[in-house]
Amino acid sequence: MKLLRVGTAGAERPALLDTDGNLRDLSDVVPDIDGALLADDAAMARVRAAAEVGDLPVLDAAGVRIGAPVGRIGKVVCIGLNYHDHAQETGARPPAEPVVFLKAADTVVGPNDTVLVPRGSVRTDWEVELAAVIGRTARYLDSPEDGLAHVAGYAVAHDVSEREFQMDRGGTWDKGKNCETFNPLGPWLVTADEVPDPQKLGLRLWVNGELKQDGSTAEQIFSVGEVVRYLSHFMTLYPGDVVSTGTPAGVAFGQPEPKPYLRPGDVVELEIDGLGRQRQELRGA
Amino acid sequence: MKLLRVGTAGAERPALLDTDGNLRDLSDVVPDIDGALLADDAAMARVRAAAEVGDLPVLDAAGVRIGAPVGRIGKVVCIGLNYHDHAQETGARPPAEPVVFLKAADTVVGPNDTVLVPRGSVRTDWEVELAAVIGRTARYLDSPEDGLAHVAGYAVAHDVSEREFQMDRGGTWDKGKNCETFNPLGPWLVTADEVPDPQKLGLRLWVNGELKQDGSTAEQIFSVGEVVRYLSHFMTLYPGDVVSTGTPAGVAFGQPEPKPYLRPGDVVELEIDGLGRQRQELRGA
Repeated sequence: MKLLRVGTAGAERPALLDTDGNLRDLSDVVPDIDGALLADDAAMARVRAAAEVGDLPVLDAAGVRIGAPVGRIGKVVCIGLNYHDHAQETGARPPAEPVVFLKAADTVVGPNDTVLVPRGSVRTDWEVELAAVIGRTARYLDSPEDGLAHVAGYAVAHDVSEREFQMDRGGTWDKGKNCETFNPLGPWLVTADEVPDPQKLGLRLWVNGELKQDGSTAEQIFSVGEVVRYLSHFMTLYPGDVVSTGTPAGVAFGQPEPKPYLRPGDVVELEIDGLGRQRQELRGA
Repeated sequence: MKLLRVGTAGAERPALLDTDGNLRDLSDVVPDIDGALLADDAAMARVRAAAEVGDLPVLDAAGVRIGAPVGRIGKVVCIGLNYHDHAQETGARPPAEPVVFLKAADTVVGPNDTVLVPRGSVRTDWEVELAAVIGRTARYLDSPEDGLAHVAGYAVAHDVSEREFQMDRGGTWDKGKNCETFNPLGPWLVTADEVPDPQKLGLRLWVNGELKQDGSTAEQIFSVGEVVRYLSHFMTLYPGDVVSTGTPAGVAFGQPEPKPYLRPGDVVELEIDGLGRQRQELRGA
């Protein structure tokens, strides 16, 4: 299923995109799409049954805002340098174990919402990423297979990053990863049963129509299942948590000087095979 | 006022500690103590008025669990190396600007809850910290005074840290800061009007009765107001967010070998002048 949340920011209603491309209202079936739903097998079965019957009210998709496909996200855990080609372009060696950092859940916005270039920023950069959304509490897992079994579904994530804040202002990467609007997510949460192999997904990103990133999750150093397993030994992952699994080569930081960092007025589009497409216009904060 | 939340984990009710030391039930006045309350001047005035009238129901404090004093925390932002003496003991130079990292809100537990030593951990460490709880949305603030004006109150925080995970496993400090139960908070949220100068508070921490940390916020490199101002240029702080402002000298990591890291069975107690006292027993995860 393709689950999504539509409406004004903070007041989204749950919906699904049916196999004919119609937007269907789920608000009579479940209150929201969030960790509580993803962890509730009976409620998920109700959603699935309603989808199959096919009589959910059709919503007019014209002009409707799409929110992030998961509400009440607890935390966003990100993996850095997780593609061979991206590690190389940044001058870093492939890490021996996953590089972990956090984004606050309040950075998450809808897939087509405006992204704000922070005041004083001259190095705002893009990163298309495959996000895995956790469906069951994950704690000290034993295997990548068990890691995957804790994933409810997948979504496109944009891990917007300010490189000066991230690397040249002291402290950890978090300083350049948590500016407001820095995490567009969606459009859909595609349930894991519709993503038979998360290691075979193409990811692409364009800036002002020019293709900048064109990778595949086949190039990930640590697979999605391994990332979830690994993280579960350092923190507990809860339903509704988001794990962003890294970006392939092609970010501004990896280009020759003058590096083409994002500016107000730029348009970023990104997509992952089967997970949909985002489009953001940049503005000054 | 000293606001707190009491009851079983996940089902705490709001309360206050009156000037006679009685625990008073606030659940008929406000639904919870959280960012929504702290940002709501009218609701805060209702709480204050009820406290002054003095007829709130008294709760029996015997055996009652105290939860974290703030519910629905959005994010926990931490400042590293923010005391001259602590920076020195870790071998780090005093930072030129605040060192920032994040703890997930799901690491927050009550002030006397059990703290779990992660599986495989041999370097679990303690850190007593002054936490400032945000009361108004803070975004691109101009001055430390304005920073302080966005703080609703203060609490004791324990920034439990796994040093191997933090420093020797690749990636950012977040890897050693987000294990479950790693952020006891409370017992109280002391409203800012009762903390006339947050830069004159003594902080102390004991392990198994032995005094390990004995510092003062006067030794902070960056003041609470400056930290809030600074952070507001990198991220938006929302009501209910927690800012932990660093720890003074005396952590295990700063001791001579063999460093006395925490083990199951150890008891940590910590306190800050006017903000109350915590006591945690350690167990294996």
